[in-house]
Amino acid sequence: VISVGIIGGSGFTGAELLRLLAAHPGFEVVVTTGDSQAGSRVADLYPSLAGAYPTLPFVSIEEARDELAGVELVFLALPHGTSQSLIGQLPSSVRWIVDLSADFRLRDPSLYQRWYGEPHTAPEELPRFVYGLPELFRDEIVGASRVAAPGCYPTAATLALAPLVEAGLVKTSGLLVDAASGVSGAGRALKSTTAFCTVDEDFTAYGLLSHRHTPEMEQVLGRLAAGDAEVSLLFTPHLAPMNRGILATCYARPRVDVSTSSLLDCYRERYADEPFVVVSERSPSTKATLGSNSAHVTVRYDERTGWVVALCAIDNLVKGASGQAIQCANLITGQAEETGLSRIGVYP
Amino acid sequence: VISVGIIGGSGFTGAELLRLLAAHPGFEVVVTTGDSQAGSRVADLYPSLAGAYPTLPFVSIEEARDELAGVELVFLALPHGTSQSLIGQLPSSVRWIVDLSADFRLRDPSLYQRWYGEPHTAPEELPRFVYGLPELFRDEIVGASRVAAPGCYPTAATLALAPLVEAGLVKTSGLLVDAASGVSGAGRALKSTTAFCTVDEDFTAYGLLSHRHTPEMEQVLGRLAAGDAEVSLLFTPHLAPMNRGILATCYARPRVDVSTSSLLDCYRERYADEPFVVVSERSPSTKATLGSNSAHVTVRYDERTGWVVALCAIDNLVKGASGQAIQCANLITGQAEETGLSRIGVYP
Amino acid sequence: VISVGIIGGSGFTGAELLRLLAAHPGFEVVVTTGDSQAGSRVADLYPSLAGAYPTLPFVSIEEARDELAGVELVFLALPHGTSQSLIGQLPSSVRWIVDLSADFRLRDPSLYQRWYGEPHTAPEELPRFVYGLPELFRDEIVGASRVAAPGCYPTAATLALAPLVEAGLVKTSGLLVDAASGVSGAGRALKSTTAFCTVDEDFTAYGLLSHRHTPEMEQVLGRLAAGDAEVSLLFTPHLAPMNRGILATCYARPRVDVSTSSLLDCYRERYADEPFVVVSERSPSTKATLGSNSAHVTVRYDERTGWVVALCAIDNLVKGASGQAIQCANLITGQAEETGLSRIGVYP
Amino acid sequence: VISVGIIGGSGFTGAELLRLLAAHPGFEVVVTTGDSQAGSRVADLYPSLAGAYPTLPFVSIEEARDELAGVELVFLALPHGTSQSLIGQLPSSVRWIVDLSADFRLRDPSLYQRWYGEPHTAPEELPRFVYGLPELFRDEIVGASRVAAPGCYPTAATLALAPLVEAGLVKTSGLLVDAASGVSGAGRALKSTTAFCTVDEDFTAYGLLSHRHTPEMEQVLGRLAAGDAEVSLLFTPHLAPMNRGILATCYARPRVDVSTSSLLDCYRERYADEPFVVVSERSPSTKATLGSNSAHVTVRYDERTGWVVALCAIDNLVKGASGQAIQCANLITGQAEETGLSRIGVYP
Repeated sequence: VISVGIIGGSGFTGAELLRLLAAHPGFEVVVTTGDSQAGSRVADLYPSLAGAYPTLPFVSIEEARDELAGVELVFLALPHGTSQSLIGQLPSSVRWIVDLSADFRLRDPSLYQRWYGEPHTAPEELPRFVYGLPELFRDEIVGASRVAAPGCYPTAATLALAPLVEAGLVKTSGLLVDAASGVSGAGRALKSTTAFCTVDEDFTAYGLLSHRHTPEMEQVLGRLAAGDAEVSLLFTPHLAPMNRGILATCYARPRVDVSTSSLLDCYRERYADEPFVVVSERSPSTKATLGSNSAHVTVRYDERTGWVVALCAIDNLVKGASGQAIQCANLITGQAEETGLSRIGVYP
Repeated sequence: VISVGIIGGSGFTGAELLRLLAAHPGFEVVVTTGDSQAGSRVADLYPSLAGAYPTLPFVSIEEARDELAGVELVFLALPHGTSQSLIGQLPSSVRWIVDLSADFRLRDPSLYQRWYGEPHTAPEELPRFVYGLPELFRDEIVGASRVAAPGCYPTAATLALAPLVEAGLVKTSGLLVDAASGVSGAGRALKSTTAFCTVDEDFTAYGLLSHRHTPEMEQVLGRLAAGDAEVSLLFTPHLAPMNRGILATCYARPRVDVSTSSLLDCYRERYADEPFVVVSERSPSTKATLGSNSAHVTVRYDERTGWVVALCAIDNLVKGASGQAIQCANLITGQAEETGLSRIGVYP
Repeated sequence: VISVGIIGGSGFTGAELLRLLAAHPGFEVVVTTGDSQAGSRVADLYPSLAGAYPTLPFVSIEEARDELAGVELVFLALPHGTSQSLIGQLPSSVRWIVDLSADFRLRDPSLYQRWYGEPHTAPEELPRFVYGLPELFRDEIVGASRVAAPGCYPTAATLALAPLVEAGLVKTSGLLVDAASGVSGAGRALKSTTAFCTVDEDFTAYGLLSHRHTPEMEQVLGRLAAGDAEVSLLFTPHLAPMNRGILATCYARPRVDVSTSSLLDCYRERYADEPFVVVSERSPSTKATLGSNSAHVTVRYDERTGWVVALCAIDNLVKGASGQAIQCANLITGQAEETGLSRIGVYP
Repeated sequence: VISVGIIGGSGFTGAELLRLLAAHPGFEVVVTTGDSQAGSRVADLYPSLAGAYPTLPFVSIEEARDELAGVELVFLALPHGTSQSLIGQLPSSVRWIVDLSADFRLRDPSLYQRWYGEPHTAPEELPRFVYGLPELFRDEIVGASRVAAPGCYPTAATLALAPLVEAGLVKTSGLLVDAASGVSGAGRALKSTTAFCTVDEDFTAYGLLSHRHTPEMEQVLGRLAAGDAEVSLLFTPHLAPMNRGILATCYARPRVDVSTSSLLDCYRERYADEPFVVVSERSPSTKATLGSNSAHVTVRYDERTGWVVALCAIDNLVKGASGQAIQCANLITGQAEETGLSRIGVYP
């Protein structure tokens, strides 16, 4: 059993790590930090976790020094900007790092600066991280020691578009990703935009033209694109009145002759061996993925207008964050990829 | 006071007509039919209406004959296909007809057959109807006696795109309309797709490539398009876990030089005199329109990818159905356009 | 037209006053304060109100001095404790005050101190206020100049229990009020308890044994009780995942022979002339009251266990707050009681 | 591994059995019937289960004969009335039966007739069943071969009240159970009362005085009551706009001196060894139990009014149905009681 520390465990992705790791036979959480919640018990902030963590406290990063010193794997579940500054201070016992923030996802530090509005403070660390989307980059992840876990929207959008882009079936400029997310994607911090009375019975777009997951999608698809084609993509996120779930509805123009059935065949083949990807003719529903690490995918070609539409549904906190982080942790530590993760959603 | 009959009053759009007409000084509901509910009182099926209609019953269309004989204006709130077969049987007292179904929206009966899967049975009536979107076709509506009230999605999509298309700012082929609706848009009939446990905490696309509001959008935009440009459009509807509201997020490619500020100016000018259209830089939220006849609109141009994004939020049962029907009824009967309609939403 | 000022207009009850007064022919809002929002426009904080208040700003109480000086009626929509300290500073032009806070509801200032945890700072004002529940105390309200508008829960609970208590049908000690409220009852201020991800898909009790509306219910029922019977009551509020609505389910023991039909008759008679009370055998639903000033009431007697159950549903922001405040304002200014208020809910 | 059949697997409790059994190491589902869905695949009706059951079909009970013939344990997830008529036809291979319906819960068949409106057709089977609430009747369940799994409301209400009744701390006549449930408790069948537009943003009571879980609560508490005290209880269920969860708020009068702290001590002691009961001072929230088999409990004594209030939150489909059925199945087959069940909720 590998001893695990969670840095930033009091947010939603931290709590989801705690939930999933409680049932994981290969990892044992020995310490969890949560600076703003230091001193309170996990079970008080998250009564849902009381059954598994009756006494575990959140501690400050300082208080965690001793316990961290014996830890082999660390999950960083911190706001962007914080992982960069913290990473140099982790003890030498830490063999594996899985970072859930945006800090080590973009390979080009100037992209980070442009979209996040501040310079990257540890650009020298960037080459040491692999991008943790196993369905697309498994070979790189196996054997790595540092993983940048993908953003929630990029996970859904790139799983929807990857088979098209890899096979060179669509034009890679002017792609459109129109997506909706549940509210947990915005984190636990109090904001007027995520107050119940703001969100309930509302549907709205936000971050028009400027959402930070845009360059991440472009980078991933750019790496997949045949012949180094340039990728440009407009991403419009929406907020839906629900706790969890992302649906990405993606639009592309074909480069070659396609049909709905040929595209479905292509997707089925591409994801045939993927335990967490369900390809189907059904229009995917976020609810079918709730609590699971699965991604549900479909695709269509509209002969009338010449558009390809690809859709992917995930649970933003599992496949879009903590579940995928554990999937990567399994891979880098040599465990079976599915360990501790469910393919089945909690429904209804 | 003009005497009014509602045919098909037991569905959601019928009930919304009853709600709005209760506060309308110029119309008086004297009879409402509802075949499946005949014999039950409005107040029993809709306790929300008990305060205004304590005794009014739903009657069958046969039982309504006598009362209809004295009615001057009729709202038809029926499923598609039914208005066509009924319209020839209305008594001669009926001077004005506002039809909320899809039956008289498409000018070309072959389009009706293609998208609705059955031949139109009263094609000779089509030329007698005007399309009831006052912000786009007010001149036609004033003075008309028969109005085909628009569909909910076409109302949102065309109000979002109209300024672009009218001014020739965008290419009209390959337009994209990605929209989400609350569940009331699916009507009151029981379906597994609108059961609470299906919809709650879910976000999903439906009717991929094939939603019947597609040709209606193309027809409206085609009429607005400068120089008879062809319009083709892909429409992807989604179901959001809320009672009411539609947000249409629309994408187009510019034909000329544009910027976000020039586009916003264009929209402000276009809708300057419209009492029910609010143009703003804010990203529109469906919740702000709840219960009102308002449409909230904004627009952006993304220099990076070359896409124009236009958004419109409405209440699907008001501006998207019964409110707009009353707005048209006001116009055709010579009343002030805003009578009985609110510009303000119920919030939160 | 009477000129009106709203003090504390940026909270939910303030915004609801703005919504309702926009359609009121007898009142005109000339100024609205909102200290924390001073400088922003009503339409920016509440886009739902953009159609009626495109330019009206929230101003600080200091900036409002001049405009308040000409105002005849003031609504105070402030947190408890604030109305007390402000009331002495209102200009002499103000002939009528309707306070929506808890400050002037409890006649006995020691009760205020016990339940609100601080001494009342203007006890001399208490006798000048009448309690603004027209269905129970209309005679006092007509002709008054200062009204303490009731709390949301006390409105629902006392309308449910009043016919029983007035007629001496039940024992007045050991009454139980078990109620659930939508989230808007907790106000607009950010709290972790009203974040979307806390509330959505959750049902929980709060304020066990200690909710401040308890003594208000006891006071009202004590005034109604035949023969000065003592009233004691346990109140358990719950939070339901919805924006609006309160359902109070109340339990009492009969003092005399009763039956469900005799109780329903008693309720129908008691509320026969009340425009905003709907008595029915139907189990009341909060949704039927949404946006309206109506209260839906029913009652049962369980022969098996000897319990009387009385239920009342209201919209907490309308009949439970701003609508009732306007109902009272109508009465004290000599207008028709129903002016500007709807008996019909927005459904679905 | 014990081979398992599910009879009536297409409803919500059946689907929840499939979800939980997919991760259970000791049971293997070999057949699942679902008469109304016969011929369709589990993955089509429940895409959430596609990852674990890609090909398993629902079959009719007739088609299942052969496969049932080799099954050792059967879960019956049928509507009430159906288990009775079916139970005689199960093959002799079936050693264990866990029935999730109401058919074998009430020991007195005349009670069944009174509350369910029809005579019991297999009263001779009643003595062969034990009541499957392990926290209260574990000794009976271990070693039994037939289990009647409790109703969802009785599970929450009796876990809340049991420590009080067992210890003789409260009067057992005139108990009150006021509870709210998520919509999944009403099952998958289409009804207007569970349509999204009926339930969303609504809170309402139903089944006033007459809910069928009432005699079940009285029976359980009657068995626990010291000295054969009579138990009478009024139960008022409410419907809350959420998928899952029950909160029972229960009221009783003390027989002896009590205090909140003495009551909390009593609960902590009573449930000290129970893996699925969390006793806490916190007011329990249904959301903390979502997807888990846990029950969260607290208790208070109100000195002011003399009422004891006890609260319990569960997930109605897990601890209130399928999870508890598996907990019992574990006990009767000699497996560890917690196998395949989670103590942790999915949050948010």
